[in-house]
Amino acid sequence: MRIDIISVLPELMESPFQASILKRAMQKGLAEVHFHQLRDWSTGKHRQIDDEPYGGGAGMVMMIEPIDKCISELKTQRNYDEIIYLTPDGETLTQKIANMLSIKNNLIFLCGHYKGIDQRVRDLHITKEISIGDYVLTGGELAACVLADAVIRLLPGVLNDEQSALTDSFQDNLLSPPIYTRPSEYKGLKVPDILLSGNSKKIEDWQHEEALRITIERRPDILD
Amino acid sequence: MRIDIISVLPELMESPFQASILKRAMQKGLAEVHFHQLRDWSTGKHRQIDDEPYGGGAGMVMMIEPIDKCISELKTQRNYDEIIYLTPDGETLTQKIANMLSIKNNLIFLCGHYKGIDQRVRDLHITKEISIGDYVLTGGELAACVLADAVIRLLPGVLNDEQSALTDSFQDNLLSPPIYTRPSEYKGLKVPDILLSGNSKKIEDWQHEEALRITIERRPDILD
Repeated sequence: MRIDIISVLPELMESPFQASILKRAMQKGLAEVHFHQLRDWSTGKHRQIDDEPYGGGAGMVMMIEPIDKCISELKTQRNYDEIIYLTPDGETLTQKIANMLSIKNNLIFLCGHYKGIDQRVRDLHITKEISIGDYVLTGGELAACVLADAVIRLLPGVLNDEQSALTDSFQDNLLSPPIYTRPSEYKGLKVPDILLSGNSKKIEDWQHEEALRITIERRPDILD
Repeated sequence: MRIDIISVLPELMESPFQASILKRAMQKGLAEVHFHQLRDWSTGKHRQIDDEPYGGGAGMVMMIEPIDKCISELKTQRNYDEIIYLTPDGETLTQKIANMLSIKNNLIFLCGHYKGIDQRVRDLHITKEISIGDYVLTGGELAACVLADAVIRLLPGVLNDEQSALTDSFQDNLLSPPIYTRPSEYKGLKVPDILLSGNSKKIEDWQHEEALRITIERRPDILD
């Protein structure tokens, strides 16, 4: 998989891709992430990429021309499955969307900043608009990191068995049951007896019941 | 505001706090973010912080002892308003929660990793569990960055007028209207005439109508 991320602040996204599982996915050649500094496609000597909104109002708007030039150039180099704009008014990211994107080959992520991008970019190039949640961030950069992480960890070979994605929350419409590890007692706090019983059938039943109980308690909306 | 972030991968979170608005908030002294490497609180010579789950199953579990030691030490130094565990089965982050957290003084964010943390840490220390959305990430680090960004940008003095948070999506239960900037025509794509009319009353009405239309179309659930 190849992801091209367009942003005015690519340096903000450096460290998440240089650590842990994303780093390993790239070292293994399973994913490539390329950053594009939007200012490299601006024209004037001030490398301007934003301007005041027509009709007035607070905040600056990202101009169509640099973004159009950047995306158009990328499109001449390969076919993109989706050109995604990260924006609070996009479709809310779910595990299902992450699963679906994880089988694509080439993706562009466009990070908005300031008050957002000129609407004509959305009309012209964007095939999908995604929000990572109902809250506002400084810019689309962290949203792009989140989306890349959610998608890349699903690529075959990225996680090892120990990290198996199959028992994750949301993959089976159930939250995870409570988990415990050594020591079995810590400052008087004990691990439930059943988990120490060695009876794997009973443990499995307990884990399923607990997962169900927690899901009903916290997130009845995600149950089948 | 002071945020203490506990993680096995603090280096993953470096760049988001060294750029843009978060950086400026810290330079202005409006926010302090301190990273704590969880391994510094582990005991054995291998700096072990995780172990196999009781009852079997895939994935490692973060042990109670290093986390308890780290949080307990921080608690001796100051009072924390909330000790937040970032986890997919937590309460879903909303702008309302971000607003509420932005008036607190001291927060701890605990980043989960692997299959999560020993349940007893949650019982003992955690006052709030937050999920940034219904998808699974490699770890809680990006979620911690997202939460910190959503909260810190709301602190008085962090944003300048140009970036005013008051007209953001979600602050008024409406998504934003389409926005445009120069040039008024680009490759045949025109800015709506009304925005060029100079009639501020009509423009305001149009923007409100469009915001309402887009919200009804995309997110009827957030309307009052």
